[in-house]
Amino acid sequence: MPNLAAVMPELGYIEVRDVGEPELSPRGAIVQIEAVGVCGSDASYFTVGYVGDWIVDGPIILGHECAGTVVRIGGDVTSVAIGDRVAIEPGRPCRDCEECAVGRYHLCPGLVFFATPPHDGSLVQRMAIDERQLFALPDDMSYEEGALCEPLSVGIWACRRAQLEPGDRVLITGAGPVGLLAAQVARAFGARTVTVADVSMFRLDVARKLGFGTERVGDNDNGDFDVLLECSGAPTALADGLRRLRGNGRAAMVGMPKQEVGLALSRLNANELTISLVNRYAHTWPTAVDLVASGRVDVASLVTHRFPLDRTADAIMLPKHVPDSVKAVITPQELSA
Amino acid sequence: MPNLAAVMPELGYIEVRDVGEPELSPRGAIVQIEAVGVCGSDASYFTVGYVGDWIVDGPIILGHECAGTVVRIGGDVTSVAIGDRVAIEPGRPCRDCEECAVGRYHLCPGLVFFATPPHDGSLVQRMAIDERQLFALPDDMSYEEGALCEPLSVGIWACRRAQLEPGDRVLITGAGPVGLLAAQVARAFGARTVTVADVSMFRLDVARKLGFGTERVGDNDNGDFDVLLECSGAPTALADGLRRLRGNGRAAMVGMPKQEVGLALSRLNANELTISLVNRYAHTWPTAVDLVASGRVDVASLVTHRFPLDRTADAIMLPKHVPDSVKAVITPQELSA
Amino acid sequence: MPNLAAVMPELGYIEVRDVGEPELSPRGAIVQIEAVGVCGSDASYFTVGYVGDWIVDGPIILGHECAGTVVRIGGDVTSVAIGDRVAIEPGRPCRDCEECAVGRYHLCPGLVFFATPPHDGSLVQRMAIDERQLFALPDDMSYEEGALCEPLSVGIWACRRAQLEPGDRVLITGAGPVGLLAAQVARAFGARTVTVADVSMFRLDVARKLGFGTERVGDNDNGDFDVLLECSGAPTALADGLRRLRGNGRAAMVGMPKQEVGLALSRLNANELTISLVNRYAHTWPTAVDLVASGRVDVASLVTHRFPLDRTADAIMLPKHVPDSVKAVITPQELSA
Amino acid sequence: MPNLAAVMPELGYIEVRDVGEPELSPRGAIVQIEAVGVCGSDASYFTVGYVGDWIVDGPIILGHECAGTVVRIGGDVTSVAIGDRVAIEPGRPCRDCEECAVGRYHLCPGLVFFATPPHDGSLVQRMAIDERQLFALPDDMSYEEGALCEPLSVGIWACRRAQLEPGDRVLITGAGPVGLLAAQVARAFGARTVTVADVSMFRLDVARKLGFGTERVGDNDNGDFDVLLECSGAPTALADGLRRLRGNGRAAMVGMPKQEVGLALSRLNANELTISLVNRYAHTWPTAVDLVASGRVDVASLVTHRFPLDRTADAIMLPKHVPDSVKAVITPQELSA
Repeated sequence: MPNLAAVMPELGYIEVRDVGEPELSPRGAIVQIEAVGVCGSDASYFTVGYVGDWIVDGPIILGHECAGTVVRIGGDVTSVAIGDRVAIEPGRPCRDCEECAVGRYHLCPGLVFFATPPHDGSLVQRMAIDERQLFALPDDMSYEEGALCEPLSVGIWACRRAQLEPGDRVLITGAGPVGLLAAQVARAFGARTVTVADVSMFRLDVARKLGFGTERVGDNDNGDFDVLLECSGAPTALADGLRRLRGNGRAAMVGMPKQEVGLALSRLNANELTISLVNRYAHTWPTAVDLVASGRVDVASLVTHRFPLDRTADAIMLPKHVPDSVKAVITPQELSA
Repeated sequence: MPNLAAVMPELGYIEVRDVGEPELSPRGAIVQIEAVGVCGSDASYFTVGYVGDWIVDGPIILGHECAGTVVRIGGDVTSVAIGDRVAIEPGRPCRDCEECAVGRYHLCPGLVFFATPPHDGSLVQRMAIDERQLFALPDDMSYEEGALCEPLSVGIWACRRAQLEPGDRVLITGAGPVGLLAAQVARAFGARTVTVADVSMFRLDVARKLGFGTERVGDNDNGDFDVLLECSGAPTALADGLRRLRGNGRAAMVGMPKQEVGLALSRLNANELTISLVNRYAHTWPTAVDLVASGRVDVASLVTHRFPLDRTADAIMLPKHVPDSVKAVITPQELSA
Repeated sequence: MPNLAAVMPELGYIEVRDVGEPELSPRGAIVQIEAVGVCGSDASYFTVGYVGDWIVDGPIILGHECAGTVVRIGGDVTSVAIGDRVAIEPGRPCRDCEECAVGRYHLCPGLVFFATPPHDGSLVQRMAIDERQLFALPDDMSYEEGALCEPLSVGIWACRRAQLEPGDRVLITGAGPVGLLAAQVARAFGARTVTVADVSMFRLDVARKLGFGTERVGDNDNGDFDVLLECSGAPTALADGLRRLRGNGRAAMVGMPKQEVGLALSRLNANELTISLVNRYAHTWPTAVDLVASGRVDVASLVTHRFPLDRTADAIMLPKHVPDSVKAVITPQELSA
Repeated sequence: MPNLAAVMPELGYIEVRDVGEPELSPRGAIVQIEAVGVCGSDASYFTVGYVGDWIVDGPIILGHECAGTVVRIGGDVTSVAIGDRVAIEPGRPCRDCEECAVGRYHLCPGLVFFATPPHDGSLVQRMAIDERQLFALPDDMSYEEGALCEPLSVGIWACRRAQLEPGDRVLITGAGPVGLLAAQVARAFGARTVTVADVSMFRLDVARKLGFGTERVGDNDNGDFDVLLECSGAPTALADGLRRLRGNGRAAMVGMPKQEVGLALSRLNANELTISLVNRYAHTWPTAVDLVASGRVDVASLVTHRFPLDRTADAIMLPKHVPDSVKAVITPQELSA
C-alpha cells in the first residue's frame, strides 16, 4: 500500500509522491491522517520559502493542523490504541532542557515541529507520531474539528499570554481563523464583551454570525478594552490597538508583521500597558478538545473549502485566490476523481 | 515668617518668592520641607516646558522627591504628629474612581501630583499635604534618604511590573539614579545576578562600587537574562535589551524615549517576551523606607551634589553641566550665604 | 406614602412596619426595592440571632440580595438616573483604609453591609443607597435576576479565590443556591468539567438540569479534580473534598461550618494543595450582571418560591419547611391579598 | 577500594559496610560524598521506621542533604566534569508524566528520592547520580554549605508557596534548621520584617544572632503579619499562627504534625487567608547556591556538630540528646580514629 504525500520539491510546486511506510518507535504510533488544515505559514513556505528564521532548503512536506486514526502502535505505547481517533499536537519537545523542565516546552530549542524545516509535516497518508502528541477525540467530534484544535490552541494560548481574566472587555484585531478562534476562546473563558475588528466585510460578517460585536478597522477609537489580541499581522495594528486599552491593559501579539513595529511608548505608558509576545502554545490540547466537544467553540463553521491531497497547492493558495474564504482543509486519503 | 519657594515664572528661569502660608485641611499637615531631589522631569519642565502630554502654562513650583518635618496638623489627622520626620509620596488620588477602587491609584485620572502642571511641587519651605501621603522616617534615616524614597519607589515598581522573581538574572540599562536604585531593589528582592549597562564610565564606576556587575553598552550580547529594566530612555535601548533576554523574559520600560521605538517583534516572539510599561508606582513607600532603613538599599551615596533653595536652577542643570554627577538635592530651608 | 419594612423586633418574629422615608445624601439614591433573595444568613439571624461574630442586639431589617428602581437621586449623583433599574451591591466600604487602598474593599474593617448588625437590610420598600453600589440592569433582566447577582457574586469570587483556570476540572460540594451558581460560573470561566456533589437527590436533579455531572456525597472517591469549591458548610466536606484533588489542587472554602474543621495535613501535602478562605466578594457586579444578561448563567430557574413582604418569615423558614426548594424571593412592594 | 556506607539493617541500628562500587549510567556521575546533613526524616526512619506513608521494609542507607566531588562521569555527561565540586539535588523525576510536563517535577509519582524507601540515600562514600541533579559549587563554598542547599531549598520553596512578596511582614514559627533558613530566605527575597517564634531560648538566641526579631511562642498575639511560614510541626502552630495574619494573609505549611490539625475556619475567613501545603521544592538549586555564595544566607553557622561516618547513629540522635543543637553534618570520608 503506497503512502502518498504532498511533497514540495521546490518553491511554488507540490507533487503527490509515495514516501514509503513510516518507521515505528516504541513510544510511537502510525496515524492515518484524515484532515489537515492549511495555515498561513504553509503559504509562506510555499510562496517565499521561509517563515521568520526558518528557511526551506530541500523537499519538504507541509501541513501541521491535523487529526487522524491510530492504525499501529509501538511496543511501549499505553495511552492510545489502534482505532482511536485523535487530534495531533504537531510539536515534540526534548523533555530534558531548562525550558522543558519548567513546563515551557514550546520554547524548547530542540522542539521538533511538523512542517518546520527541516522537519516534514502531515500532508501525508500515514505518519509516525509519539503517543504523547495524540489526544483522543470524542465520538461526536469530526476529524476536521480535531485538526482545528491546532489553531484553536493558538487562540487559547493568546488568551493565557494576555492574562485574560473573566469579566474583561476584549478587542480582537484580525478576523482570520486565529482571530475568530481567539474570540471564541475569550468568550468561553468569561470575557464580558468581545469585539472583532477587520477590514474585510466578509470576515466581519462571519464574526457577527458567531455572535460577536464587530467594527471596521479605523471606524472606532473608544478606549474601553482591557485586553487586545492582535491577530492580523498588519504593521500598525498593534500600535492602533494599544491606544484602545484602559489602565492595566494587556495585549497579546499573535500576528507577526514582517516589518519593525513602531510604538510611541511615552504615550502608552500612562495606562501602564503590558505587551506579551506569543510563540505557539503549550499544554492546550485537552482544553481545546473540550471547548469544541462541549460546543463552546465552533470550529466547523470556519471551514469554507475542502480539497483532496492532490489539490494541496490550490488549498494553500485559497486565501489569495478567494478572499471571501476562511479556512481550507485537505483530506490526505482522497485524490481527485 | 515668609514661606519661600523656587518659582519658575517662565521657561528656564527660577526665582525665590514668598508664596504665603499654605492652607490646612482637616486631613492635611503642614510639612517643613528639608530635602528635595532633582529629577529629569524637573529639567524637562525647566528647559522645554513639558513632559509627555503635561505642558507648563503658568508659573509653577517644581520638585517632587521630598521629605520634611510635620509642623502643624489638621483636626482629623491621626497618623502623624507635630515633630514627625516624614518621607512624602507626591501623588494624591481621588479614592473614588474605578482605578482607585481596584488599588491602582497611580492610574487615577484625577491624581494630583507634585510639580505636574498645573500642580505645584515641593521646592518650597512649607507645604500642606494630606496625611495619607506621609510616612514616618526612622531616627537614623536622613531627610535626603527620605526624599530619595521617591526615585526608589520607581525602582521598586519597575521590579514589580517586570514580575521579577527571586533567582532571576537581571539586566539594568541606564546607570542614572533610577537605574542604580532599580539595580539595588532587584538585588534586595532576591535577583541571582544584577548587571548594569551604561555608556558612561563614571556611572559604571558608581555601579561597580555598589557591588554590581557592569558592562559598557554595545560591548556584550550574551542572552542570559530573565529580566530587563530599561532605565536609560535611549531610543534603541529597549530593542537592544530585549535581544538579551531568555525564554519567558520580562522587560519593564522605565526610561521614556521621546521618539517612537521600533521593535522587530517577529524575531522577539521566539522567546515569548513580555514588555511592561511603567507609570510611576503604587503602594511602595513602606517598602522603600524599610529598604533604606535596613541598609539593603544605599540611596545616600547617590547624592553627589547639594544646593540651597536659591540655586535651584543650578541643581536642575547639574547633569548637563557636570556629566560626572548622579543626583542633586536641594535644601529649601537654606539660602546661599 | 408609607415605607413598609419587614422588621425583626425579636428573635424568630417579623412584623411589617412603616419605617419612614429614608434620608438622601448627595451621592445617594432612593431605590424602590422590587426583589429580595433570602440567604442562609437571614435564617441564622432569624433563628439564633447571630452569624459568626455578628450578633443581633436590637430590631433589625434583614435581606441583602436585592434589586430595584431608582426613584430619587442626590445632588452629586452622576452614574444613575431616576427610573433606572438596578442590581444592588449590599456593602459600602470606607475607601480610606489600607484594605480599600489596595483594592480589597471587602476586607475593609469599616464596611457597612446590609442586614449585618447593627445595619439594616433591604426588606423594605424604599432605601437610600450610595450610587457606587448600584449597577444598571439591561432591559431583559428581571429584578429577581438582579437580586441574585449577590449570591452569584459569591460564586464568582469563589472561582477567583480558587485561582480557577480555564481547562480545570472542578468539584462543587453542596448544591444549594451558592453551589449551583458557583458551578455555572466555573463553566462560564472555562472549566473543562464541573461536577456537583450533594446528599439531596432533589438538588442533584436541579444540578443535572443545569447540565452538570452529579454525584451523591460518599459515592465516589476518584481524585481527578483541579479545583474544589466547598459550598455545603458540612463539617467534613472540606477534608473529604481535598482528598479528591490532584497535584497543585486548589480549594476555596465558601461554606462555613460552625465547628472546627480537622485536616490531616501530613497526608494532604503530597499533592501540595492550596486552601483559600472566602469572605464575600469584591469587584464582581459588572461580571455578574453580564453573566446573567448573556445567558451564560441561569439564575432565574433557581427561584422556586416567591413571597410578599408580609410573609417574610415564611420565606426565611422555607428551606426548613420545604427541603425540596432552592431559593425564595420576597417582593417588598407586595402584601398578601 | 571499598565503598563504605552507613547501612540501617534494622530499626535503631546502623553499621558501616562496604556496599561495592556504584554502577555508572551514560548520563550519570560517580560522586564522592563529602558532607551529609542530618534531617528530622532520617531520625524518623531510624527510630520509628516511617515518615508519612513511606515505610522502611529492608536495609536502607539514610541521608539526602549532601555535596561532594565528581570522580567519574558517564559517556553522555556534558554539564559536569571530573573534579567538579557539586551540591546535589536528591530527587530524580521521570520527566514524562503530567506533573513533570507542567514543571512540577516534585509532584512526579515516579520521583526517585534519596533515603525514601525503597531508595538508598547518600550516607555512603561514592554514589552514582544523574548529572541533572548536580550543581557546581563556587570555589569559596564549602561542602557543608553545599549539603545545606537541600534544607535551604525547603525554605525557598516555602516562600514561593506562600507567595511571599517584597515588603511583606513575615512570621516564622519554629526555629529549627528549616525555620532559620526560611527566615533568611524571606529576608533575602525582600520581606520588610521577619520575626521568628519558638519555645527554645537557645534557638531564639541563634535567630537573634542571625539578625531576626524573636518571640517566645505564646507571648505575643498581635496580628500584623502578611505571611506565616509554619516550620515547627507543633500540632497547634498553624491554628495559632493563622490568627496572627492580616487581610489576604498567606500561610505555607512546612512542618508536618502527625495529628489532624483543627482549624476554626468560620473565624479565619474574615481575613480571607490562604493556606498552602508544601511538598519539598522544585527548581531551587541555582537560587540556593547563589544565596549562600553571595552571603545573603548563612548556612554555615547552623552546623553545630560534626560526625564521622561510623558515628551516624549519634548524629541522627543529636537533637534528642543535645537539645541545644541546630544541625549535625556527617563526613562519609572520615571514620573515627
